[in-house]
Amino acid sequence: MMLSRVLARLDVGLDHSIERLFELLKYKSVSTDPEFRENCRETADWLVKDLKTIGFDASRRDTIGHPVVIAHHDGPNADALHVLFYGHYDVQPVDPLALWEDDPFNPKIKERNGHKVISARGASDDKGQMMTFIEAVRAYKQETGQLPVRVTILLEGEEESGSSSLYSLFEMYGNELKADYALVCDTSMWHRDTPSISVSLRGLLGEEVIINAANRDLHSGYYGGAAANPIHILARILADLHDQNGRVTILGFYEGVEEIPEQILTAWKALNLEARQFLKPIGLSLLAGEKGRDLFELVWTRPTAEVNGISGGYEGDGFKTVIAAKASAKVSFRLVHKQNPLKIRKAFRTFVRSRIPADCTVEFLDHGASPAIQLSFDSPLITCAKTALSEEWPNPAVLVAMGGSIPVVSKFRSLLGMECLLVGFALDDDCIHSPNEKYDVNSFHKGQRSWARILAALST
Amino acid sequence: MMLSRVLARLDVGLDHSIERLFELLKYKSVSTDPEFRENCRETADWLVKDLKTIGFDASRRDTIGHPVVIAHHDGPNADALHVLFYGHYDVQPVDPLALWEDDPFNPKIKERNGHKVISARGASDDKGQMMTFIEAVRAYKQETGQLPVRVTILLEGEEESGSSSLYSLFEMYGNELKADYALVCDTSMWHRDTPSISVSLRGLLGEEVIINAANRDLHSGYYGGAAANPIHILARILADLHDQNGRVTILGFYEGVEEIPEQILTAWKALNLEARQFLKPIGLSLLAGEKGRDLFELVWTRPTAEVNGISGGYEGDGFKTVIAAKASAKVSFRLVHKQNPLKIRKAFRTFVRSRIPADCTVEFLDHGASPAIQLSFDSPLITCAKTALSEEWPNPAVLVAMGGSIPVVSKFRSLLGMECLLVGFALDDDCIHSPNEKYDVNSFHKGQRSWARILAALST
Repeated sequence: MMLSRVLARLDVGLDHSIERLFELLKYKSVSTDPEFRENCRETADWLVKDLKTIGFDASRRDTIGHPVVIAHHDGPNADALHVLFYGHYDVQPVDPLALWEDDPFNPKIKERNGHKVISARGASDDKGQMMTFIEAVRAYKQETGQLPVRVTILLEGEEESGSSSLYSLFEMYGNELKADYALVCDTSMWHRDTPSISVSLRGLLGEEVIINAANRDLHSGYYGGAAANPIHILARILADLHDQNGRVTILGFYEGVEEIPEQILTAWKALNLEARQFLKPIGLSLLAGEKGRDLFELVWTRPTAEVNGISGGYEGDGFKTVIAAKASAKVSFRLVHKQNPLKIRKAFRTFVRSRIPADCTVEFLDHGASPAIQLSFDSPLITCAKTALSEEWPNPAVLVAMGGSIPVVSKFRSLLGMECLLVGFALDDDCIHSPNEKYDVNSFHKGQRSWARILAALST
Repeated sequence: MMLSRVLARLDVGLDHSIERLFELLKYKSVSTDPEFRENCRETADWLVKDLKTIGFDASRRDTIGHPVVIAHHDGPNADALHVLFYGHYDVQPVDPLALWEDDPFNPKIKERNGHKVISARGASDDKGQMMTFIEAVRAYKQETGQLPVRVTILLEGEEESGSSSLYSLFEMYGNELKADYALVCDTSMWHRDTPSISVSLRGLLGEEVIINAANRDLHSGYYGGAAANPIHILARILADLHDQNGRVTILGFYEGVEEIPEQILTAWKALNLEARQFLKPIGLSLLAGEKGRDLFELVWTRPTAEVNGISGGYEGDGFKTVIAAKASAKVSFRLVHKQNPLKIRKAFRTFVRSRIPADCTVEFLDHGASPAIQLSFDSPLITCAKTALSEEWPNPAVLVAMGGSIPVVSKFRSLLGMECLLVGFALDDDCIHSPNEKYDVNSFHKGQRSWARILAALST
């Protein structure tokens, strides 16, 4: 009864909720680039202000990096269940800007492939997703004068750049943040009619390798053939990272990697997603990576090594016959099961160092490390959410694995002992981390309704 | 008698000649970057004006690219020897600008390692070198009222970017340019006391490879392990370019490469340059490249493949877990003896294409091709120049090979049938193509005197 009033209010209030999201999307909260530091602070301030209008005790907590927003709201009574909602207000860089159809920080409603979408950097990842929860809570409060459970909200500003400030906050504010469950809205639907709950996530290890050779850029006519070329050294290292079967060659890399039970693989195969169908929207047709593995294994449960960026020598227009003084690459590893990120970091560095000539040097930059995480398939939390989602959407919810990392999830478990629920309404064609990011208006609207249903279900 | 007056005038006029060079160095004639197009035109205009003050019939000849300057001056009589002097007024890009001690386009006299030097982009390559000849001619004209030989001057603006407009001019203006000999001032001294004449030069082939995979940048969490990563493909190609012995693996690459006669290798060994001594100024100590070869072979007479630049994915600060849509590299080949640049270009493209997955594509950009050149060791021209240089400098001139390319030299021979004399006064520490380029005042001064001596010797 109360839930249906809340749902009705969400329907009526959709346009206003979009206006609020537009305000938030205008902030250029690119966390990885120091140029946008002030924009991140302003984004946090906007969120604090907005949460206060709902009745939250909200505040900005500054860190060495970007601030975190923490907000509390009582439940209906002292015994009420306590949930922590986590989202992130920071976004990925927008480059290459030339490929955007519109200004990434001037959100618009557009029609894309027959669907109304909100177009902007962060529309999906994660501002739009984060606001689905906040709008659900707002409607509850407005409609009923209270919330069905006790709610703490934690919104961070460094998810896209390693969350390096967040975990020390867990030590400082652990008592404030510890709840019965953590709810995270940063994942995708299986299909636009089929919601999903993510129960396993790959971990992530980020490394930057900088190889230094000569003390300055050299003329390749004078020195070519005699002086070390750091791009050659780097290319060799990166090529050596995989063997002919696409397996990572770093010593001990597969330690802790488990085979997925046949039963689960069978269930995933029933989802009926073919490699060609998966790759077609991105213009590809052949599975790359480890040979002899199923698509679901490749993207969900097998570890990877990917070079995310490479740079060296003359990169401008035209040509310059130079031997560069240095070359660098950003490399990330997606980790699964019990792989130990720190052991792999060490093994990777040894792997690289063993390929550096004695008169050259190598530096490493640490871009964060988090292990993979495997959640329960059938806890009361998961079961309750599955039912609630299945009532909202055309098809019942499915339990899936995820190729991406949400490092905070493993920290919630390891540092705060909380079980997590990973529910999100992004779609595969949202272009997150890419030009022309969007979030379907339907995701935003039914996402709000989904959270209202989940909160109602958790409160009973 | 006449020569000693000209030499004396060059001594007295040094400061004025430096002032003129400074004017020329202030022009930002970076030919490879379209942004500096206008600057190149202005540089050509300045040269035309300066040559007219000497009495040359000088004019700017516009091309699709940057203009060429052509100037003529009669000899003392109708039977006089006719020489063509070639130089280039364009310069390399200045990046990375942060590594320059001074503004690269605001020339200064500085003290470096106990020597007075002229510091600026192009001070050595090739504005300073080019002006040594022009100053010699100017002094001759001022002192004697005429020139000892008939002189045509050809100054181009695309040497650093492939000379793509020059050779069609040879067809158009061949009659104007054809002379008895071509004199080129774009090479180095063997040592600051020992002048050299270059008798063999490596050729150059420039290629850019652009690998396209997905139709947009991808999130490495969603697609990592399943989608092709163009940086991996590129790294594999570049690593495959060399075998474990540093030999280039492209099919047929060594066709036309000759072994150097033992006698010449012995003469070079007598120059007594050790690998450590050669590499020390650039902060290296180990010979890279082809194994089992002497330093002189590596830098003078063996062909190479060098990656001059590489780019792909996220290259900014911080980290972005992206799988790039494309990756690219600039690759150049130094060629020797009878290697055929066009055959090698074709073989390289086949080599690359065979390593591109069927769902990815590759594009190539052609950045020019010129074969290697081998000049005579003992022609009258070489002998005459050797004597003149040996009179000017503390040590006698030596005949050497060169690792770099001066494509125009092969065109002088093939298109205009001219024998070339390659004399230059650059030093190994001039940092050409690098930050903090300089030209020793001594190179500039004694370079002028050297040309006066060579012109005098040629006229008798």
